[in-house]
Amino acid sequence: MNIIDLNCDLGESFGAYKMGCDEKILDFVTSANIACGFHAGDPATMRKTVKMALERNVGIGAHPGLQDLTGFGRREMQISAQEAYDIVIYQIGALYGFVNAEGGRIQHVKPHGAFYNMAAKNPALAEAIAEAVYKIDPEMILFGLAGSELIAAGQKAGLHTASEVFSDRTYQRDGTLTPRREENALITDHQAALNQVIRMVKEGKVLSLQGDDLSITADTICIHGDGAKALEFAEYITASLLEAGINIAKISDFIN
Amino acid sequence: MNIIDLNCDLGESFGAYKMGCDEKILDFVTSANIACGFHAGDPATMRKTVKMALERNVGIGAHPGLQDLTGFGRREMQISAQEAYDIVIYQIGALYGFVNAEGGRIQHVKPHGAFYNMAAKNPALAEAIAEAVYKIDPEMILFGLAGSELIAAGQKAGLHTASEVFSDRTYQRDGTLTPRREENALITDHQAALNQVIRMVKEGKVLSLQGDDLSITADTICIHGDGAKALEFAEYITASLLEAGINIAKISDFIN
Amino acid sequence: MNIIDLNCDLGESFGAYKMGCDEKILDFVTSANIACGFHAGDPATMRKTVKMALERNVGIGAHPGLQDLTGFGRREMQISAQEAYDIVIYQIGALYGFVNAEGGRIQHVKPHGAFYNMAAKNPALAEAIAEAVYKIDPEMILFGLAGSELIAAGQKAGLHTASEVFSDRTYQRDGTLTPRREENALITDHQAALNQVIRMVKEGKVLSLQGDDLSITADTICIHGDGAKALEFAEYITASLLEAGINIAKISDFIN
Amino acid sequence: MNIIDLNCDLGESFGAYKMGCDEKILDFVTSANIACGFHAGDPATMRKTVKMALERNVGIGAHPGLQDLTGFGRREMQISAQEAYDIVIYQIGALYGFVNAEGGRIQHVKPHGAFYNMAAKNPALAEAIAEAVYKIDPEMILFGLAGSELIAAGQKAGLHTASEVFSDRTYQRDGTLTPRREENALITDHQAALNQVIRMVKEGKVLSLQGDDLSITADTICIHGDGAKALEFAEYITASLLEAGINIAKISDFIN
Repeated sequence: MNIIDLNCDLGESFGAYKMGCDEKILDFVTSANIACGFHAGDPATMRKTVKMALERNVGIGAHPGLQDLTGFGRREMQISAQEAYDIVIYQIGALYGFVNAEGGRIQHVKPHGAFYNMAAKNPALAEAIAEAVYKIDPEMILFGLAGSELIAAGQKAGLHTASEVFSDRTYQRDGTLTPRREENALITDHQAALNQVIRMVKEGKVLSLQGDDLSITADTICIHGDGAKALEFAEYITASLLEAGINIAKISDFIN
Repeated sequence: MNIIDLNCDLGESFGAYKMGCDEKILDFVTSANIACGFHAGDPATMRKTVKMALERNVGIGAHPGLQDLTGFGRREMQISAQEAYDIVIYQIGALYGFVNAEGGRIQHVKPHGAFYNMAAKNPALAEAIAEAVYKIDPEMILFGLAGSELIAAGQKAGLHTASEVFSDRTYQRDGTLTPRREENALITDHQAALNQVIRMVKEGKVLSLQGDDLSITADTICIHGDGAKALEFAEYITASLLEAGINIAKISDFIN
Repeated sequence: MNIIDLNCDLGESFGAYKMGCDEKILDFVTSANIACGFHAGDPATMRKTVKMALERNVGIGAHPGLQDLTGFGRREMQISAQEAYDIVIYQIGALYGFVNAEGGRIQHVKPHGAFYNMAAKNPALAEAIAEAVYKIDPEMILFGLAGSELIAAGQKAGLHTASEVFSDRTYQRDGTLTPRREENALITDHQAALNQVIRMVKEGKVLSLQGDDLSITADTICIHGDGAKALEFAEYITASLLEAGINIAKISDFIN
Repeated sequence: MNIIDLNCDLGESFGAYKMGCDEKILDFVTSANIACGFHAGDPATMRKTVKMALERNVGIGAHPGLQDLTGFGRREMQISAQEAYDIVIYQIGALYGFVNAEGGRIQHVKPHGAFYNMAAKNPALAEAIAEAVYKIDPEMILFGLAGSELIAAGQKAGLHTASEVFSDRTYQRDGTLTPRREENALITDHQAALNQVIRMVKEGKVLSLQGDDLSITADTICIHGDGAKALEFAEYITASLLEAGINIAKISDFIN
C-alpha cells in the first residue's frame, strides 16, 4: 500500500509554559496526538489544539500519559492494568469533551512516552488500554509500535490498529527499536532515514542493525513537533515521500 | 408539582483517601454528583461510583470543581469565563468516558463548592458553564441554586435546569442563603428543616429570616453524604417526604 | 541613599518546560526570587538556580506562590491567614534545603503574583506571611510593594523590609499602582521609566498620575526576566543608574 | 543493646482527607516519620504534626516520597539518582521550615513506600539519598531496611544510620523481606511477631523462612499508625518489650 499517515504529538503546552510549534507543524501532519493533562496539556491548550486540528482536517487523537507532569510522562511507573484502563478512559473522555463541543470526532488513541513503551512490552497493560479504547468507541484506531504487544492487544480486542514506524531509529533483529542508550540507535542522516521509511512503506521491510531483513507494517510515521529542525524535517519528509510516489493521508482515510 | 429529586455529592475519595459512605447513601438519593478529579475524585473512584450509580438507577451527574485538591474546591479563585468553560468541558468529558464505557448517560451537571457559589452570583461565569454543558450535550440538566445566575444562564442557553433548595439553611429576603458565618444560617431542628422543604415543594414558598414569604422553585434537595448522621437524615427526610405525599424521583424523570 | 537593589523572578522552569533566560539575567540583577514549586519551579530547577545565583554572588530569595501551577500563581484565591502562613513556611523551607546543601543563605522572601498583590492589601495575610518569615529566620528581608500592608506587617514583626518600586508602572494619588486594566497603567518609554526610577531612588519621590508628588521608599526595583527585551532593558537600566550616580548592590549589603 | 526505637508514619492526611490516628499513636512511638507533601501530607498537616510530636518529645523525621499523590507513593517510578537527590532535598527542606519555626530539629530521614524499597536495592539511588541527607545536616539519622543498600550508603556517606526491622514480616535466607505477594510473607500471630522482634533486639538474630539463622541489626521497629488495631498492637508491643527487659527510646538518644 503506497500510503502513509504522519502523526505528531501536539497540545503539550501547559499554563504559562509553551511547548512546540503546533500551529506550523499541523500543516504537515495528518494525525495529531493531543496531550490530555496528565503528562502535559491543560484544558485551554486542549481546546485550542482541537480547534486548530479540526480547521486543518487533521485527524484528532487522544494522547494519554502517565500522571507525571514533572517528568513529562517519560518515567516508567509500576501501574496495574486496572490503573492503565482508568487513566486511559479518563483522558480520552476529557479530550472527547473538547472534540465533541467543537463538533468533531476522536480518530485515534496513542499512549505517550513511558506509557507507550510499557504498553509495547507488557501484554496486561496493552490489553487494558485496548479495552478502554474499545469501550468508549470501537471505531477509534489504536496506535502502537509496529510489532508490539499494544498492536496485538488492539487486534485481539477488535480495534483497528495503526502500526507506527520511526524514520530516525534503527531496528534490532527481533523487530524492537535499538534502545537510545546504545550506539547506532539513531539515524542522523536525513537521506538514510528517508530511505528506511520508503522501504518500510513500499516493501514492508526494514534492515536490522544485525543485517537481517525484517517484515514490518508501516501505517504511520512519528514526526517530532519540537524546534525549527522539526519543521524542516517534516517538510523534507513530506516532499520526499510524495516524490517517491507515496501518498500521505490521515489514517482513518485508508485503514481498514 | 408534588415531586422532588434528592441529590448528593459522591465519588469524593482520592487514591488511598476514603471519603463518604457512597454505597449506602446511594440507596436514598436519586441523583449523584460525581467528582471529576479537580477538587476530589480520581479515575478509579469515578469508575466505581459510576458503576454503583448505574446499578441503582441513580441519575449520574458531573460535579466539576475548581482545580484545588488541597482546598477541596472550597476556596474561591479568580478564574475567567473562558477558564470556567474549559474546566467544565474537561471534567464533564472525563466523566463521560466512564459513563459511556459502562453504557450509561450523564443526566446532569452541578458545579462544586466555591465554583457553585461563584456561578450563583457571577453571570459571566454562569453563562460560560451553561455554554459548556450545552455544547457537550444539550439534553443534560444544569443544577444550580434556586433563583441564581446559574439557573438564569442555563435557561437562557436553552438547557433544562434544576433549582436546588436546602432544607437546613435559612433564606434571606432576596432569596439568597443566609451566609454560614451569620447567626441563624443553619436550621438545626430536623422537623423545622423538613417543614421548610415540604412547603418549598408543595407551595413553592419559603419564609425568609426577615419574615417575608418568597416564591421559590424546588426541583432538587441537596443531601449531605458524609457521616452516620447523613444517612440518618437521608432516611428521615425520605420517609417524611413520602408521608407528606411528595414523590421522590430522579430529576430526568420529571423535569421538562 | 544613592543605592538600589535589582531583583528578578527566576527558576520558573518546570520539568520539560523552560521559562526565562536565568543564566543571562543573573549577570544584571543583585537579588533572585526563586520559585519554590507551587506556582512554578521544581526541585531540579531550584537546585540549578540556587547554584547559579551563589556562583554570581546574587542574593537568594524564596518566591512563594499560591498552589496554582496551571494559573502560574496569577489568580487570586481565597486563602486564610493560616493557609498563607503554612504555604510560606513550606516553600521557604523547600528552598532552604537547596541553599543549605550548597552552603548558602536565604537573603530574602518575596511573595509571587496574586499572592504578592493580596498581601499588599490584606493586613491579615500580610501579618501571616511576615510571621512565617520571622519564625524561620528573623534575619531574612521581606520584599513587598512600597507602601503596602506587607511592608507594614514586616516592620511590625521586626523584620528588615525592602520596598519594591516599578520603573514601568504609573502610581495613583494614594501610592498604589495604577491597575493594569486602566489606560496609562504602563510606562512604555524607556527614558521616562528610567527618570521615574532615578527620582524615586535619589529623592524618594514619585509623581502620581493625578499630578501629586508622593513620598516613596525605593529599596529594590523589579526587573523582568523573560524575553530578549528583558535582557536589553536590564542592561539599559543598569548602565543608566550607574551613570546617574546610583550604586547597584544586593539588598543585604545595604539594608539596615 | 537492649534498647529499641519505635517509628511510625504520620502526617499523612491531605486537605479535607483524614488518615491515621496521629494524636493517639504518638503516645506509643518514639520517632515520627512525617509526610512532606509528595505522596501524602500538606503544609497544614505538617505544621500540626510537627507541633504534636514536639509536645510529646517524639523524634521528628522527614518522610520523603515519590511525587505520586494518587498512588500514595507506593508505585515504583524510574527516577534518576539526581532526581532522587532533588526530591529528598526539597522535602526535608519543606519539613525543616515547620520544625525550625517551632524551635525543633529534624532527627531522622526515612524514605517512604516505593522510594524506600527502591533505595533498599539500588545503590545509586541509595547514595543520592544519603548525600542529600548529609548535605542538609550530617547529624540527621538515615533510616533504612536492615541490611539494605540504603544503610550501606548512609554509612559510606558518614551518616548515623538506623536499621529498621519488621515484627510482622518474614525474612528470606538473604536477609530480605519475603515479598507480600508470597505465602507466609506476613506474621499474623501477635505472639510470634513479638518473639521475632525480641530475638532481633536481644540477640541480633532472626530465623529465615528457609530455616537459617541470620544476623540482623535492629535499631528501630516500624509501627503501623492506621486503624484501631494499630493502636492496640502498639500498646501490646510496648508493654511486651518492656516486660522483656527491652527499653524503648527515641533513636537519637542511643544511636552512636
